[in-house]
Amino acid sequence: MKLSEKVGAMQFSPIRKFNPIAQKAKDAGKKVYHLNIGQPDVETPDVFMDAIRTYENKVIAYAESGGLPILQESVIDYFKQYDINFEKKDIIVTAGGSEALTMTFISLLNPGDEVLIAEPFYTNYHTFATTAGGKVVPITTKAEEGYHYAKREQIEAKITDRTKAIVCITPGNPTGTVLTLDEMKLIGEIAKEHDLWIIADEVYREFAYDDRKVTSFAMLPEYADRVIVIDSVSKRFSACGARIGLLISKNEEFMSNVMKVAQGRLCVSTVDQVGAAALFKLPMSYYDEVKAEYCGRRDVVYEELMKIPGVVCQKPGGAFYMTAKLPVDNVEDFLIFLLSEFDDNGETVMFAPAEGFYATPGLGKDEMRIAYVLNQADMRRGVELIRLGIEAYNKR
Amino acid sequence: MKLSEKVGAMQFSPIRKFNPIAQKAKDAGKKVYHLNIGQPDVETPDVFMDAIRTYENKVIAYAESGGLPILQESVIDYFKQYDINFEKKDIIVTAGGSEALTMTFISLLNPGDEVLIAEPFYTNYHTFATTAGGKVVPITTKAEEGYHYAKREQIEAKITDRTKAIVCITPGNPTGTVLTLDEMKLIGEIAKEHDLWIIADEVYREFAYDDRKVTSFAMLPEYADRVIVIDSVSKRFSACGARIGLLISKNEEFMSNVMKVAQGRLCVSTVDQVGAAALFKLPMSYYDEVKAEYCGRRDVVYEELMKIPGVVCQKPGGAFYMTAKLPVDNVEDFLIFLLSEFDDNGETVMFAPAEGFYATPGLGKDEMRIAYVLNQADMRRGVELIRLGIEAYNKR
Repeated sequence: MKLSEKVGAMQFSPIRKFNPIAQKAKDAGKKVYHLNIGQPDVETPDVFMDAIRTYENKVIAYAESGGLPILQESVIDYFKQYDINFEKKDIIVTAGGSEALTMTFISLLNPGDEVLIAEPFYTNYHTFATTAGGKVVPITTKAEEGYHYAKREQIEAKITDRTKAIVCITPGNPTGTVLTLDEMKLIGEIAKEHDLWIIADEVYREFAYDDRKVTSFAMLPEYADRVIVIDSVSKRFSACGARIGLLISKNEEFMSNVMKVAQGRLCVSTVDQVGAAALFKLPMSYYDEVKAEYCGRRDVVYEELMKIPGVVCQKPGGAFYMTAKLPVDNVEDFLIFLLSEFDDNGETVMFAPAEGFYATPGLGKDEMRIAYVLNQADMRRGVELIRLGIEAYNKR
Repeated sequence: MKLSEKVGAMQFSPIRKFNPIAQKAKDAGKKVYHLNIGQPDVETPDVFMDAIRTYENKVIAYAESGGLPILQESVIDYFKQYDINFEKKDIIVTAGGSEALTMTFISLLNPGDEVLIAEPFYTNYHTFATTAGGKVVPITTKAEEGYHYAKREQIEAKITDRTKAIVCITPGNPTGTVLTLDEMKLIGEIAKEHDLWIIADEVYREFAYDDRKVTSFAMLPEYADRVIVIDSVSKRFSACGARIGLLISKNEEFMSNVMKVAQGRLCVSTVDQVGAAALFKLPMSYYDEVKAEYCGRRDVVYEELMKIPGVVCQKPGGAFYMTAKLPVDNVEDFLIFLLSEFDDNGETVMFAPAEGFYATPGLGKDEMRIAYVLNQADMRRGVELIRLGIEAYNKR
């Protein structure tokens, strides 16, 4: 009774693999600041549960495979605020951004097809692409350059006969790097010249700080036939447990392929869709508030990180992640040290080692990802513990 | 910009493809009795929305990838009523039975692997298996034999070096055929001899009529290491829009493979899981009531079908479907006739042509599937309309 070889070769979540060691630290009475996971503490807007509580239907029936019309309409109105025009037929509601990505890869890729992604990247892209029989080809970026990759030579160097698409996650997880609209145009140009699809994962769209404008590949009509936008309520509305994502494209042939896969899984949760329809109706002031909150946290994290001699990191422009190079020999060993040997007044800290975010073997061993999902005081203390931990670790 | 060839080769839902013609009939003022879809009119138990309405959590956070512990515990208690013992580690909560099947195939199959399924079968199995790179090999069954297939010669004739699993849907969609525990044992024996997995789709488990007992492949401990049970709240609790399914197995290596895929999509809807936990706590009297309702409908449908000269059909033992051979040359043509040319007092009827449920080309052209998802009076009228329609169709 053999199993699937491709799943056998997949890894367990590198973000979750240190949980048992963290649990031991907690069992021993240590307080652990969790900067390792992307689950924000920001409250889900009340409109989500309010809409669900007032949903009256004697039969919780199948929704349309493409999504509940009230949610599609709400999404259309949301995009209109950015002068982006979509129709219902351009939008398929999915079980989170994860399903949107899985369906995209399944609908696009043939066995052996390659997909370009800047590394470090969100590890589950491996799972999604592998499941579809494809292969991730990384465009390596560097802490010293703020993890930027929107350069023609850097991208074109990785394009082969098998390259089918380029995935752009902006604002990015795990780096927080944001593409400008000019950079998006360059990528659009390259994609057109090499006949590639653009998979634009924009689930952090509003979380762009300082003087950055909200941008989207959907703002480039000249490339509309090759752009696939991935979206989700998880981060924008701090509703990770409402599994509502969106797969959006104006390419009808592609959407027709996706619809076959969507019909196979019938539909997405009806009550979550009812709640999500209310979320997308929130006023722009909601985003301003949340953005201000995260931006404040970023500033605190960056300020504290800069107090650590030898840290390499540029101030990231968006999302709620920061990746940095630490002055330690091995970040995984350092994390295990933090959890099992170190404490400051009974407290320690946890982050995600960045090695798992790289596809190229050997890279990222001295980098970590921080998710700034806690309040400012906790974030400040968390990064302080990293600083104190490094001092202790390097003195051993 | 090419697309995935395997998705390109997939079909759109054969159940839904006649919807535009039905819509035209309705636009022209005809009343259409929908016996074509598996969406029951039975009310979802109030406990589902009640549990959700009282769910108080300021952050709708990610659930565990394997499922919310309260739901897993509720499922464990549900199975204990049948003396079946599962632990949390045996249970992964999925987005409906559909995701449980998709994850099963992805975790089991290598490209070219074959999966046996008795035909006619639920069409989406094609989508699930194809997505995973596998191939469905049909075991053909016949209306004259009540669509039974649990015979050693019939099953073994289809086993090759590439056969990886046998899928048993019991009670069955679209035939309503139910396996006895002895038949399950025979299939277990064959699976053991040929080293196959058994994928037991038991989402209609309680809907077994007459003197039939509730059965499950999970009642056979001697085959527990090769049994994968697929379950769902959709049909049992008339909660199709609550996308909650279950993937259950005692094979730890398999479950470990599945968990990698499950971690990739993070988790299933938190609020749906809260509601589903309440559903699985319903007393056995709930199933008795629902079963009595469906059994009454089945009797009406069978009684009316037997009034049609030339119909071939055995009274099915479970689920809420019936497949029958009709005395017409071509059931798809007949359906189009019913929708576009026929009416009786302004009324007509719609069913699912069975051809789409067969993998073998040419089979099922004179068969239809009825879903008895309407009340008895409507079901009686629906089948009467089929009878009147056949008379008119064959007189043309």
